[in-house]
Amino acid sequence: MSHTVEILSVGTELLLGNIVNLDAQILSQELSKLGLNVYWHTVVGDNPQRAREAVAIAKQRADVIITTGGLGPTCDDLTKNVLAEAFGKKLVFDEGSAQRIRSYFTRTKRPMTENNLQQAMLPEGCTVLENDWGTAPGCAFEADGCHVVMLPGPPSECRPMFLYRAMPYLQQLSEGTIVSHTLKLFGIGESSMEAQLRDQMNAMSNPTLAPYAKEGECELRVTAKAATEAEAQALLRPTVEEVKALFGSKVYGVDVPSLEYVVLEGLKARGLTLGVAESCTGGLMAKRITDIPGASQVFLGGVVSYTNQVKARALGVPQHLLEQFGAVSPEVAQAMAQGARQALGCDIALAATGVAGPDKDEWDNEVGTMFVAIATAEGTHVRPLKLGNRPVRERLRIQTASHAFDLARRYLAGLPYEE
Amino acid sequence: MSHTVEILSVGTELLLGNIVNLDAQILSQELSKLGLNVYWHTVVGDNPQRAREAVAIAKQRADVIITTGGLGPTCDDLTKNVLAEAFGKKLVFDEGSAQRIRSYFTRTKRPMTENNLQQAMLPEGCTVLENDWGTAPGCAFEADGCHVVMLPGPPSECRPMFLYRAMPYLQQLSEGTIVSHTLKLFGIGESSMEAQLRDQMNAMSNPTLAPYAKEGECELRVTAKAATEAEAQALLRPTVEEVKALFGSKVYGVDVPSLEYVVLEGLKARGLTLGVAESCTGGLMAKRITDIPGASQVFLGGVVSYTNQVKARALGVPQHLLEQFGAVSPEVAQAMAQGARQALGCDIALAATGVAGPDKDEWDNEVGTMFVAIATAEGTHVRPLKLGNRPVRERLRIQTASHAFDLARRYLAGLPYEE
Repeated sequence: MSHTVEILSVGTELLLGNIVNLDAQILSQELSKLGLNVYWHTVVGDNPQRAREAVAIAKQRADVIITTGGLGPTCDDLTKNVLAEAFGKKLVFDEGSAQRIRSYFTRTKRPMTENNLQQAMLPEGCTVLENDWGTAPGCAFEADGCHVVMLPGPPSECRPMFLYRAMPYLQQLSEGTIVSHTLKLFGIGESSMEAQLRDQMNAMSNPTLAPYAKEGECELRVTAKAATEAEAQALLRPTVEEVKALFGSKVYGVDVPSLEYVVLEGLKARGLTLGVAESCTGGLMAKRITDIPGASQVFLGGVVSYTNQVKARALGVPQHLLEQFGAVSPEVAQAMAQGARQALGCDIALAATGVAGPDKDEWDNEVGTMFVAIATAEGTHVRPLKLGNRPVRERLRIQTASHAFDLARRYLAGLPYEE
Repeated sequence: MSHTVEILSVGTELLLGNIVNLDAQILSQELSKLGLNVYWHTVVGDNPQRAREAVAIAKQRADVIITTGGLGPTCDDLTKNVLAEAFGKKLVFDEGSAQRIRSYFTRTKRPMTENNLQQAMLPEGCTVLENDWGTAPGCAFEADGCHVVMLPGPPSECRPMFLYRAMPYLQQLSEGTIVSHTLKLFGIGESSMEAQLRDQMNAMSNPTLAPYAKEGECELRVTAKAATEAEAQALLRPTVEEVKALFGSKVYGVDVPSLEYVVLEGLKARGLTLGVAESCTGGLMAKRITDIPGASQVFLGGVVSYTNQVKARALGVPQHLLEQFGAVSPEVAQAMAQGARQALGCDIALAATGVAGPDKDEWDNEVGTMFVAIATAEGTHVRPLKLGNRPVRERLRIQTASHAFDLARRYLAGLPYEE
């Protein structure tokens, strides 16, 4: 039997938009790897009546219900109460959980308030999912032909609780495997990618091909379902190869997390170091690189030169270039990259300068006018960018940083900078 | 009559976890400002049958249904087809929308593929919501006692489409006003905040008090509902003052977007400039500051010194300090701040050094050992941090940057650094 999953998140903060439903995303990713079909996400607030109704709907249409949130003292353990009631279970005090809660507070040297112990009340006969990342324990049980798993709300608890506690419980339900590969593309728009693939996509059923666009990048997810992982992989292989051939050097990787990850791997493989000089991106390039554990092996550092003075002082950008061409110019982009290479002592330096908005710069450059540059032992290259119609500051910065990374990954892979 | 809203998002990419449901968050924030009660978020995939069932449920329990996604050619305009069917409406070709789609492609100099014109088929008699941020138009109509609003999926389209197109349509439904103020706190844990407020929270019904925790910060949202904005504000005032008095200097602002925003405003008010020196935070401090439009007025720049060499070369950190105490030490944190102040020529410099993980450093400092420092005309201050039990790299970096910003906002407000 193929299982269908509903993720039911409980929390008024979601309905008010105070937080985004990251739990649903995390769980969906992991569940699809298990071959379990997530068909619904539902969010209700800390309201017993609507939570009850949502559980009734979920119980009818899904045979696995995974809840997130509503377990802490703040919401009077709403989720546990409602689910226990819906499945006719009593809540009983679990001494083991109480012990763990007490020792959590001892370990983190914080005072424990009495309301925290409510969290040790759990549905009778359930599998307790111990929470080593916070205080509220989760739990799992089967009743009325339905599997119920309850997890805490904070994503920093929900994710590890799922991976290390709920996963072993759910693995027994999984049959067949869904395997996906994701091809990552840079330098092509979603609709032109989609137009090139449309006939193919419509003709396919297993594997399927699904395009996604985000922040100036495109992804193509190829997904196959089969009895075993090996069979699924065999189904996927020809399609992956076909798509790679179709889009050539615009495909920067398969199953890689990001452009910057590909750059880091390329640097490690070639034993080269990287530095960055950032104006409009304001630290985002360095941040994205150092988001990756182990970046320190190849990333030496960066200079965020938000003013001409810092461009001159810390990067040695010649004053006459700043005066003659302005900070947003190919000349200054190139000088920043060269200067960073010098100042940081790195093999490859990337630079970005441009107008992220909200307003034009004093040289009358439009918002979205950007230059990214690379300096290497072999020379320099500058890519001018005109980003967006209706530019949004945050997006411009992300795309600009991505273009700089694109130069680096092309250099490292021996590809032409522009094609 | 009080309206109840369901946000129905359509997209398999949400159920696979490829993207997070940012639309639901954005819309929820805006709808609650309008005084409309969002009671449900639902997500279904690109599956006509399950979409139909979800619409039937929504139609029963909500009287405003706002959909996101499923409008583009990629999904064969699933949402429009299902909603039109559920409410007994035909789809008709809208020449105005077709024109806009054609001119969008002309304007962005991209080739238009024929499938894009499907998007001009809209429910008969609907209000067309013109899309100036993408190609798929939205629409709105009333039928069977229910208001239906359809918006495109990409958040960069969904947000402005809501604000500039759907809002005027929805404003007529709004009655009464919900007004919220959010107090932002730094330096206190959620459960100890909650314990101090619990009796108060339980006793209150209008306004209500809701605590949230995120990334080492806490928020308290005070919300009142009244016939007019002025009445709601009058209800809120005493509670806001009470909470401010209770938590003192830990409250860093009311209705402010972030710690770094408060720092920037403080700098502008006092006519001072800022620079940063980052090791473990790797550009995140500069990135967070420059995320804010207008940062360039007071932010000069930063140095990301991911290696000792860059710490010495770009920041002038004395070699003997690095050798004697190691890069993760109060001495080096202080020297980085002083060095950045010098190198960047700023009034206030912030520095962060520490072990973000995944592994201990070569001096055997545990992951989560951090030092943040501030250097000003009046001197320096270093705050040592031991972050987390079960540290997560990304969270450690965010919290460390926040601690550095906390030093700056305390300096700018004339508060003691530690209290």
